[in-house]
Amino acid sequence: MSNDAHLRPQGEGEQPLYDTAVPTPTHGERARTLAAAIRAGTLCTIATDPAGTPYGSLVTFAMDGPAPVFLISELAEHTKNLRADARASLLVAESGEGDPLAKGRVTLLGHARVLPDGPERDSAKNTYLSVHPNAAYYIDYADFAFWRLDVESVRYIGGYGRMSWVDITAWRTGEPDPIAPHAQAIIDHMNADHADAMVAFCRALTRATDTTAATMTSVDRYGFEMSAQTGRGPRPIRLPFPAPITTPDDARRAMVALVRRARELLACGEPAGSDVRQ
Amino acid sequence: MSNDAHLRPQGEGEQPLYDTAVPTPTHGERARTLAAAIRAGTLCTIATDPAGTPYGSLVTFAMDGPAPVFLISELAEHTKNLRADARASLLVAESGEGDPLAKGRVTLLGHARVLPDGPERDSAKNTYLSVHPNAAYYIDYADFAFWRLDVESVRYIGGYGRMSWVDITAWRTGEPDPIAPHAQAIIDHMNADHADAMVAFCRALTRATDTTAATMTSVDRYGFEMSAQTGRGPRPIRLPFPAPITTPDDARRAMVALVRRARELLACGEPAGSDVRQ
Repeated sequence: MSNDAHLRPQGEGEQPLYDTAVPTPTHGERARTLAAAIRAGTLCTIATDPAGTPYGSLVTFAMDGPAPVFLISELAEHTKNLRADARASLLVAESGEGDPLAKGRVTLLGHARVLPDGPERDSAKNTYLSVHPNAAYYIDYADFAFWRLDVESVRYIGGYGRMSWVDITAWRTGEPDPIAPHAQAIIDHMNADHADAMVAFCRALTRATDTTAATMTSVDRYGFEMSAQTGRGPRPIRLPFPAPITTPDDARRAMVALVRRARELLACGEPAGSDVRQ
Repeated sequence: MSNDAHLRPQGEGEQPLYDTAVPTPTHGERARTLAAAIRAGTLCTIATDPAGTPYGSLVTFAMDGPAPVFLISELAEHTKNLRADARASLLVAESGEGDPLAKGRVTLLGHARVLPDGPERDSAKNTYLSVHPNAAYYIDYADFAFWRLDVESVRYIGGYGRMSWVDITAWRTGEPDPIAPHAQAIIDHMNADHADAMVAFCRALTRATDTTAATMTSVDRYGFEMSAQTGRGPRPIRLPFPAPITTPDDARRAMVALVRRARELLACGEPAGSDVRQ
């Protein structure tokens, strides 16, 4: 866990309205989460012709732990390139509507190698087929083989001004956020049915004591973020869960406990924001 | 124009039901059309650290004629890389639902260079801003500059088994299909309101004389493609326009003429498919 500079107002004299020391996912964790959620990216290799030119090609992949694995044909340009020079990277980027530069992406750099029969290939095959079941149709073609990119450097960009070279140990030991596959459903549910609870969170548990409306914008294993409508306009708020969560049920229980605490504080007339660490 | 091998049945003993010599877009034209329709891609450069590793990064771009132009910051990794080694490529890929390997993509390889003040920069700026108007907010930041990738090689992949190194002269002199921005609207209109006309096309103008239903699947400046429901299942059909078209109005007029011709042939009882060149 780490703090994330992008969550803090950028020196415009606005004091944050919440405790910015609360745990947030590290860039390594964000990068692992992003890579685990996406199934196609750009493989960058060194072309044999025109020799030495970096060559980008579309590949489908799966994450086998910290390493992307591919099922690629000897006939493809990128495979010929890798046979001549194993250095490679994979760019994985969030897709969807809106400004692509505001979205997350990660570049995984290292060396690629073909996987001979054995436990590494078995693992790659199982992982790849679980994500790309249609590949079963050509998995046994003689010209196809499984490759693995052993990741040695990781460049993460979370959006404008939110980027780093990720510590490689943090990449290798990190885990994709178990909440990520459920995040949108949680956000939709909270915004549809619990807008009042989020206003209570902001008024009782943060310095946004004049919040009149709040919208959940993200949720992860460590906590969640809201946009609070305050007297000075919309302001970002992050609140932590009491402990990291792993399931939607955990999220529900944590939210219920937070609602109880917020409403108790508001009922007692305790100074709002009093439990915010300075 | 050229014939496109992918449109022909792949040696399964099925004779095509239409004249496969009809004009179709070349791979060069398809690649130009694809690049013109997309606003972000993967820039592949040679990393300075780890030195020599191909590095993929997300960029927004615009096509200034046959060359992609970028507005990038000196602070960005890819710009540092290009300052050290100008060799680069840009992968541009169709997005959307479904199998990404079945969609089109093109890799443009060459050398990148920063554009000093002058007509080339003015052209790049106008083109880029027309596609990315929000970039006006940072276009004058001191660390941002316009770059152009002078394209020397082009690898086009239209989907499974449909790929080539595009002739560079065809790339440079080709033009994006003027119908492409309107294609989906034309397809939707034909499928919603003119299913009967397409059945008539297939019965009168091709060897798919037992067609009972037909769906338009694509349209370009040279013609259009349908999936015809025949006694032997769905079969691909391509029909040419009398001359290349450039506007939706041209498409409408061409369709009206084709309907008249097809209905005349059917009314005369002329042997169906009689005007198909063998």
